[in-house]
Amino acid sequence: MTALQTAYVSEGVGLVHRQYLTWTEPLPLESGAALSPVTLAFETYGELNQERSNAILLLHALSGDAHAAGFHSPADRKPGWWDTMVGPGRPFDTERYYIICSNVLGGCQGSTGPASRDPHSGRPFAARFPVITIGDMVRAQTRLIDALGVERLLAVAGGSMGGFQALEWATSYPARVGGAILLATSARSSAQTVAWNSIGRRAIMSDPRWRGGNYYGHEPPTDGLAVARMIGHVTYLSEPSLEAKFGRRLQGAQEPAFSLEREFAVESYLDYQGESFNARFDANSYLYITKAMDYWDLPARYGSLDAAMARVQGSTLLLSFSSDWLYPTAESQAIADALTRQGRPVEHVDIQSSAGHDAFLIDVEPQRPIISDFLDQLARRA
Amino acid sequence: MTALQTAYVSEGVGLVHRQYLTWTEPLPLESGAALSPVTLAFETYGELNQERSNAILLLHALSGDAHAAGFHSPADRKPGWWDTMVGPGRPFDTERYYIICSNVLGGCQGSTGPASRDPHSGRPFAARFPVITIGDMVRAQTRLIDALGVERLLAVAGGSMGGFQALEWATSYPARVGGAILLATSARSSAQTVAWNSIGRRAIMSDPRWRGGNYYGHEPPTDGLAVARMIGHVTYLSEPSLEAKFGRRLQGAQEPAFSLEREFAVESYLDYQGESFNARFDANSYLYITKAMDYWDLPARYGSLDAAMARVQGSTLLLSFSSDWLYPTAESQAIADALTRQGRPVEHVDIQSSAGHDAFLIDVEPQRPIISDFLDQLARRA
Repeated sequence: MTALQTAYVSEGVGLVHRQYLTWTEPLPLESGAALSPVTLAFETYGELNQERSNAILLLHALSGDAHAAGFHSPADRKPGWWDTMVGPGRPFDTERYYIICSNVLGGCQGSTGPASRDPHSGRPFAARFPVITIGDMVRAQTRLIDALGVERLLAVAGGSMGGFQALEWATSYPARVGGAILLATSARSSAQTVAWNSIGRRAIMSDPRWRGGNYYGHEPPTDGLAVARMIGHVTYLSEPSLEAKFGRRLQGAQEPAFSLEREFAVESYLDYQGESFNARFDANSYLYITKAMDYWDLPARYGSLDAAMARVQGSTLLLSFSSDWLYPTAESQAIADALTRQGRPVEHVDIQSSAGHDAFLIDVEPQRPIISDFLDQLARRA
Repeated sequence: MTALQTAYVSEGVGLVHRQYLTWTEPLPLESGAALSPVTLAFETYGELNQERSNAILLLHALSGDAHAAGFHSPADRKPGWWDTMVGPGRPFDTERYYIICSNVLGGCQGSTGPASRDPHSGRPFAARFPVITIGDMVRAQTRLIDALGVERLLAVAGGSMGGFQALEWATSYPARVGGAILLATSARSSAQTVAWNSIGRRAIMSDPRWRGGNYYGHEPPTDGLAVARMIGHVTYLSEPSLEAKFGRRLQGAQEPAFSLEREFAVESYLDYQGESFNARFDANSYLYITKAMDYWDLPARYGSLDAAMARVQGSTLLLSFSSDWLYPTAESQAIADALTRQGRPVEHVDIQSSAGHDAFLIDVEPQRPIISDFLDQLARRA
């Protein structure tokens, strides 16, 4: 561990560990199926106060996990995915709030998912895992919150698919949510989102090593998952950010190689993203989680976006990012407008950024005071 | 043949046939390699006038071919790819102009490409085909134009990669080009274009049936090519056009199936695009042509866009489309600005359209008078 790392570890939440909650009472799913037992992997940072009024649930995006902040070991090269925002003195202030983050149902970082053992067969579920929805993910989270002794969350917060879950919390369990922080998200998956997800699934499912999902114990479908991840990555960035980062620079060469192999820096970057994703993600989880995203359609469930937003009882903070073309500003604005029409307190800030959809994780500086103030107001009222 | 088809066939250029030009003099390539013999498949519509001053060369995009207009057989369900614009009384008026269109070098619709027989081995080139550039494609076209007895083209015209070729003509052979019509195109491939093309190539090359390119006589890599084409298709459309066309409609169902299989209409559409592309396109050609696109960088070749545009001798018409995010309006505007700074006659029209990049082939009505007038002015001056 370098001195820099030591300092950083001691500044943030420090060393943390993953915890697990397992229950055997069946979890009913939107499809009509049920799962039992169910395990959720989770982490917590900070302490629950005596009034049990300071709990905040963080909700991760497609490729995230329960490890939102801190380090699992001093040797870790990177902290949790939202570490810049979680810790003493940070917006999700662990000296003030009790922060919870769990890996989604269907995930592959400790929660029950397609790689889990099917109790009926004794083998991994694989493609026999039931198709799940955002509603199912959140229903599982309510059990975790119950088990942690939290009746009402001060706030729920998440970006992208994490925002889907936050919206699900705010509309399905409105009495349990003080406020919702929604970043770079939408009330429904667009046809374009479905299209990208579907192409990623096609790439995975047509990789012969996918074997109909039964690749556990064999070589996994790394080519298919890499292609799916590479597609995702381009949609998370903006054209200007790709130009600024890579332009037409060749990787380790001055002149074109006149070869079919990759040679531009942007190609090496995408290739690296594909490889490193394979090292940490299960292809079947990618199928199930993207399918859950595709089903996400809050207006359809309640008849209209206004009818859905009428269910919200707490305050809402929406952050969108000007160069995000996957979940454009207009989709946050539509949610803000519907909440306003329903007389619900809402604040929407569109942050100027060239970083595309990824801005919600990258351009944290302008978000800090906005999120801090929003939470502070919630806490004062609580 | 239905009455409608009969009427349509008789209204347009009617029945046409593909022709071939083969030469044995080696074609030098930008990579330093050379090809011999070379064949270009081409079609012509209309008649070359006595002054040989009315020839227009149409240049096709990534997935196009020499069949720009008319029908190869009365049983054909669809005419050529730019039939709406080519024919008697249409902007590329075959009663007035002599229209030429050839399949690009590296293509798979009759021109020399990776599926062609390598004279050294007697087997298909496959991945031993030399990597080619837009400059190589156009150098091959000069031989065709020579053979057809045309010294100077009244105009060159193309969209997307067809626009790359038109720009190559206007800058590499300026004395042979009266005017250039550039639709939905750019003077260089952006990092994002390279990214999408690279992911498509990765999908093809990781399909085990690709076999390092040696799949001729075997099952071709249809899964990889389908994924590449599906990615392309989403980039050719806009988010609003996908919403309008498909939205979140399910294909042949009212309720979600809770299955990993495709079920949204947009998924069926993309799947169909992938399948039908496999029926007409060679995966190796996809690799070579997208690589040629990735190398496209006119400013780099001449030091700046202005220096490149200073080479242009004829007039230029640029059409861009407001919802095209693959080759956005700004890229056409940059070309127009550079031409203006160099004192070259240029007209740039940004057409309002929700059809995305595909607008250049779909939203033809607003283009008709603009292209007709531009050609008319060129012809009067010729």
